[in-house]
Amino acid sequence: MYSFSDLQAIVEKSFGQLHLPNEPQNLYEPISYTISLGGKRVRPVLCLMSANLFSDIIDKAVKPALGLEIFHNFTLIHDDIMDKAEVRRGKPTVYRKWNPNVAILSGDAACILAYKCIAQADAAVLPEVLRVFSATALEVCDGQQLDMEYERLPFVTEEDYLRMIELKTSVLLAGAAKIGALIGGASMVEADRMYNFGRYLGLAFQLQDDLLDTYGDPKTFGKAIGGDILANKKTFLMINALKLVGKESLAKLHQLMKSADVAPEDKVDQVKQVFDEVGVRKIAEDKISHYFDLALAELGKVGVRDERKEVLQHFAQKLMGRNR
Amino acid sequence: MYSFSDLQAIVEKSFGQLHLPNEPQNLYEPISYTISLGGKRVRPVLCLMSANLFSDIIDKAVKPALGLEIFHNFTLIHDDIMDKAEVRRGKPTVYRKWNPNVAILSGDAACILAYKCIAQADAAVLPEVLRVFSATALEVCDGQQLDMEYERLPFVTEEDYLRMIELKTSVLLAGAAKIGALIGGASMVEADRMYNFGRYLGLAFQLQDDLLDTYGDPKTFGKAIGGDILANKKTFLMINALKLVGKESLAKLHQLMKSADVAPEDKVDQVKQVFDEVGVRKIAEDKISHYFDLALAELGKVGVRDERKEVLQHFAQKLMGRNR
Repeated sequence: MYSFSDLQAIVEKSFGQLHLPNEPQNLYEPISYTISLGGKRVRPVLCLMSANLFSDIIDKAVKPALGLEIFHNFTLIHDDIMDKAEVRRGKPTVYRKWNPNVAILSGDAACILAYKCIAQADAAVLPEVLRVFSATALEVCDGQQLDMEYERLPFVTEEDYLRMIELKTSVLLAGAAKIGALIGGASMVEADRMYNFGRYLGLAFQLQDDLLDTYGDPKTFGKAIGGDILANKKTFLMINALKLVGKESLAKLHQLMKSADVAPEDKVDQVKQVFDEVGVRKIAEDKISHYFDLALAELGKVGVRDERKEVLQHFAQKLMGRNR
Repeated sequence: MYSFSDLQAIVEKSFGQLHLPNEPQNLYEPISYTISLGGKRVRPVLCLMSANLFSDIIDKAVKPALGLEIFHNFTLIHDDIMDKAEVRRGKPTVYRKWNPNVAILSGDAACILAYKCIAQADAAVLPEVLRVFSATALEVCDGQQLDMEYERLPFVTEEDYLRMIELKTSVLLAGAAKIGALIGGASMVEADRMYNFGRYLGLAFQLQDDLLDTYGDPKTFGKAIGGDILANKKTFLMINALKLVGKESLAKLHQLMKSADVAPEDKVDQVKQVFDEVGVRKIAEDKISHYFDLALAELGKVGVRDERKEVLQHFAQKLMGRNR
């Protein structure tokens, strides 16, 4: 069985061997640039682990795994234009380093390259792999659209929020796990279990990201703490706070979200005070554990020997920062 | 055999039965809107004709044919943002009717929907169909990138220009013809002949469009005459004029392209005068005939009975406006 770091190394090596065209430079250089920004390669690694769960030979999953990462990069390139994000992984985003037109067109090329890699799956599983991939890809677009719409709404329900993060983040993990399983020779039933494993894990992961944005350790989180609060994001924490607080604190929360003249640190502190009043941290931690347990339960149902599942269990724990 | 109008009707009917999701509305409505703007459906019709050349039953080519039209629409939605085009087929473009973010994301969804339709090709030909489609789709992006770059260059060679229009326009016709042929059961050799038929026809068609933009009949052309001249586009006509005119007229041409205070009608008339001096109209007509003849010659080499080829011959003539 391959470990997380084995598979990360395989992904990096394979990206090194994936020769993108040199010309037109402004079309392909932004794609190489985005891929080179790195990251944990969660999606391709999950795809390969899922293939490895069912098969010792994973070569045929490598190109499709790269396709999943390239697709993820495509969504980042376009989302950054839409969200006016200037920096990603400490570097200027494509639309800032080049310009929006370059970001639109190189993003388009990245989407096509992603399909080109996915289409390298064995002919025997190709129709099903493509069906899963296209459905997933459309759902990721649905999620980004809902995310943009929710920003302009005064209130979002917890149910709607969870559905949005499921679409925007977790279906791609789910799709990666299912595609890997299919290429590894899993039955449809087993592949669907892996889909659910990825889906629940993705939900736990995104909620954990919400939680750490407010309650994380600045040394290990990698981003400034309180970013979501300062941006008035209607995250799982805020949605629950708005639902549970009394009249007085609700007014205070609305005031803080509207006010432009509270110092950023004060705003974060005061919003956190309201969060603490109603215990949203505990609510979020419980929800994260709920999804994490569901993910492991799905993995538990897969009909392969338990030892084969250990790598995926460690992966899930590592993703949730539970291995420190 | 199906006629052009039979196939147009099949395409329209099939679009009517292609139920896009209703939600999120801002993601899918712009796609339906763009498809509903109509057009001649040249790409799907060519795909179906090419399938019909080799097979009497064309059902299996219908979904992929729609995919080609949806892909074409995706490129229009994104190109219109990049080119700041306000109107298409007499209606506001997606980025004007909604906004650039909606146009980016609904374009992305259209690209994925296109693949979803293409992936409905029979499993036996699916890998090859996808290979052709992805290669074509990337080349269309290459073409758009070169088109934007050439706009900022002081001079473009005829060779570079022809390569750019080949990528931007004609490879998608070529891909449509080849994909149809593959689904219709053609051998690789025959499918490549159909690819070349589409490629040469696309080149003839795009050069004809350049020619009509300057020399067309305003009643039948559909756009205002002289648009390319007013936009200082380095079309086949302009490239040849710049290459062939004497010193004096060259200076005049450069002056006209720089000057902002010549009345539009005067500018068009004076540029046309220079064009006429060196006979660029004849040069363009000869080039169009050259590519048109090459297209028909490729069709001629295809090993099916001549009667089966008549529909495609008529299609080619109709596309070039030679049936009036």
